[in-house]
Amino acid sequence: MITASILTIGDELLIGQVIDTNSAFIAENLNLQGVSVKRILSVSDSIEEIISGLNICSDSQIIISTGGLGPTRDDITKDAMCKYFNTKLVRNNEVLKNIENLLNNRGIQNLNENNRKQSDVPESATVLENNNGTAPGLLFEKNDSVFVFLPGVPNEMKALVTKKVIPIINVKFRNQAVVHRTIHTFGSFEAILAETLDDWVTNLPENIKPAFLPSAGLIRIRLTGIGSDKAELEHLIDVEVEKLFDIIPDIIFSTKGENLEEVVGKLLLEKKLTLATAESCTGGSIASIITSIPGSSSYYKGSIVAYSNDVKTNLLKVNSNDIENHGAVSEIVVKQMAENVKTLLNTDYGVASSGIAGPDGGTANKPVGTIWIAVAGPKQTVCKQYSFGKQREFNIRRSVLTALNLLREMLVNN
Amino acid sequence: MITASILTIGDELLIGQVIDTNSAFIAENLNLQGVSVKRILSVSDSIEEIISGLNICSDSQIIISTGGLGPTRDDITKDAMCKYFNTKLVRNNEVLKNIENLLNNRGIQNLNENNRKQSDVPESATVLENNNGTAPGLLFEKNDSVFVFLPGVPNEMKALVTKKVIPIINVKFRNQAVVHRTIHTFGSFEAILAETLDDWVTNLPENIKPAFLPSAGLIRIRLTGIGSDKAELEHLIDVEVEKLFDIIPDIIFSTKGENLEEVVGKLLLEKKLTLATAESCTGGSIASIITSIPGSSSYYKGSIVAYSNDVKTNLLKVNSNDIENHGAVSEIVVKQMAENVKTLLNTDYGVASSGIAGPDGGTANKPVGTIWIAVAGPKQTVCKQYSFGKQREFNIRRSVLTALNLLREMLVNN
Repeated sequence: MITASILTIGDELLIGQVIDTNSAFIAENLNLQGVSVKRILSVSDSIEEIISGLNICSDSQIIISTGGLGPTRDDITKDAMCKYFNTKLVRNNEVLKNIENLLNNRGIQNLNENNRKQSDVPESATVLENNNGTAPGLLFEKNDSVFVFLPGVPNEMKALVTKKVIPIINVKFRNQAVVHRTIHTFGSFEAILAETLDDWVTNLPENIKPAFLPSAGLIRIRLTGIGSDKAELEHLIDVEVEKLFDIIPDIIFSTKGENLEEVVGKLLLEKKLTLATAESCTGGSIASIITSIPGSSSYYKGSIVAYSNDVKTNLLKVNSNDIENHGAVSEIVVKQMAENVKTLLNTDYGVASSGIAGPDGGTANKPVGTIWIAVAGPKQTVCKQYSFGKQREFNIRRSVLTALNLLREMLVNN
Repeated sequence: MITASILTIGDELLIGQVIDTNSAFIAENLNLQGVSVKRILSVSDSIEEIISGLNICSDSQIIISTGGLGPTRDDITKDAMCKYFNTKLVRNNEVLKNIENLLNNRGIQNLNENNRKQSDVPESATVLENNNGTAPGLLFEKNDSVFVFLPGVPNEMKALVTKKVIPIINVKFRNQAVVHRTIHTFGSFEAILAETLDDWVTNLPENIKPAFLPSAGLIRIRLTGIGSDKAELEHLIDVEVEKLFDIIPDIIFSTKGENLEEVVGKLLLEKKLTLATAESCTGGSIASIITSIPGSSSYYKGSIVAYSNDVKTNLLKVNSNDIENHGAVSEIVVKQMAENVKTLLNTDYGVASSGIAGPDGGTANKPVGTIWIAVAGPKQTVCKQYSFGKQREFNIRRSVLTALNLLREMLVNN
């Protein structure tokens, strides 16, 4: 099987200022081509460390590097390339023309020397044109390995991987079939799920490997098959997924790798239903995740983010006596929020959240992490109380997913 | 200077299913202690690859590893430790008791064998108690290096790093001073900023290194000083930041590493002003980013996410003729959205967005990426049109930041 290493370059990664999201994108796309990623390595903007990183990665047939190609002085990846591949920088007129066009389109007529310097490329490199930015991709071959250097700006890197790098890899290497399938579940604990599925795991075919990936109530079960025959692998995995549906039918919400927001969106679209939300503690995050899906305007009409109590009473028409007597974090309030937003925005479903995300605002009766979620549908309103944890970010995230899952359950059953 | 390597373990990282956020947290915390992170390495759940990774990292004095300690079968990090440190697994009764307590608190009385197996630890390891989960941290010493293995679940890892690992490092190693300062700017381009600051970069003291980090209109300028005297480094950096304010006063919004949402929040809090938002294309993301800040309920009252036009007219009271004649993505509509939400929610400021995030919905006159942002304040309303790009996620993110920055400018000037 063809193996790859990913090398990301930048001091910002090593001081923890920036999270490396490029590697996951590259790894996913290599994997889909049947290329096995052996390692992901991040090193600093230092010629010595970059060369040491290239040496470590050179046991792979494909090495993809990102970062350090910008116009500023801390970007020294091209100098490291020259040293590693024993070549020198020369000005490339096609790259220069591309930079001129790009900056002209952005309203910049006169290039400065920093812009021009981005058209200096190592003499022995093949240039991969970058249509979205000024730093081109660069490709080298050495000892049967292919080394590709890409800019670190995510949208530039992504376009270059998809349009240039993957086609080159497909021509150059013939690969073994790899099939991944991810079953998404919501609402169990990892150790409990592991016990429930113990026999199933034991009896998996030898070339199908499982993994369990937990995150804020979501547990993804990933099956990976490796072999010569893709269709056979797909079939073997189909059979195992069927078995899962017999063991844990209630908690599976997708076998196609879809997120909760995609599944909910598809259900609403299929059933021609509409949705509105009324958010307190989640502060717009439910709306934000729903509208992250392209085309969500077909089923999602909007949200009232009622962060303050007077927005709850004035705009959402929640009874102010109920807020006074029971508090904003209560069943009676969250129920009215869901039902009233459904009426006000004239939708089939209304979803509401009210809780104490923290770090402050908790009391003895209602500690930080107390969250009410309500879903109002055509026939009934369901309200549930949860106790999550002490961390604001986690509480918001978990509330959003719980609300989506409660809506999903109602959509499936109604 | 003391160096560290971070080793993250898990197939999910190498197939790109999960983004490694643990490394950035660990790197940031090590850096704050004056420990220089030399590399971040991710390898698969394979004993061979874990041992190879440990060998690569063993040139550092500190090696921190996360992942692969869970109760499921794909987690084999403990077996790799036994092989690498030449020891064997033994059941640890204190760890077992901790697991029992933890699961009892979650309402689970009877431990299964998967739970119990988590109390098997390598005989030569020092156990770091995990108060948030069932897998303990494990520490080894070998050839003057300290190896620490932590669970991959973020909140468990974070508590162990902060409460156990950092204190141990501080006792064991005496370190050099490192000072980071990040100046946040919004609204320039990297190459233009690089040219503007060319002289400033040239004249930086030798022990102060700059870096430029661009992302969706934000460019962060990071200064890093390394030396024996922390106070002197702080002073040198203060002087350079002062010079920056002379060169680019308009685009700097923070010198304390704060995000736009924090800066805007502080301004509103200081001036005792309140805010409401009315969102179309950003679909709740402005509300979500504002309410990600603890205590935002002091100045933020809420949002009307008017994703559909009838929510714009019925709830936000936008004139329906204006929508018909000018379209929802127009100056006249976004202006009414900002002004009306300010009136309806009775706040000092109103911020609104209306645009075409894509991938569909563009026309010849209003292509995908056309976004209107409005800020209504006590004295005036400012509306601006922008042309971003073709990518939905980027357009939403950039719109959110642009809206926050426009609000910030008005708050600073008013």
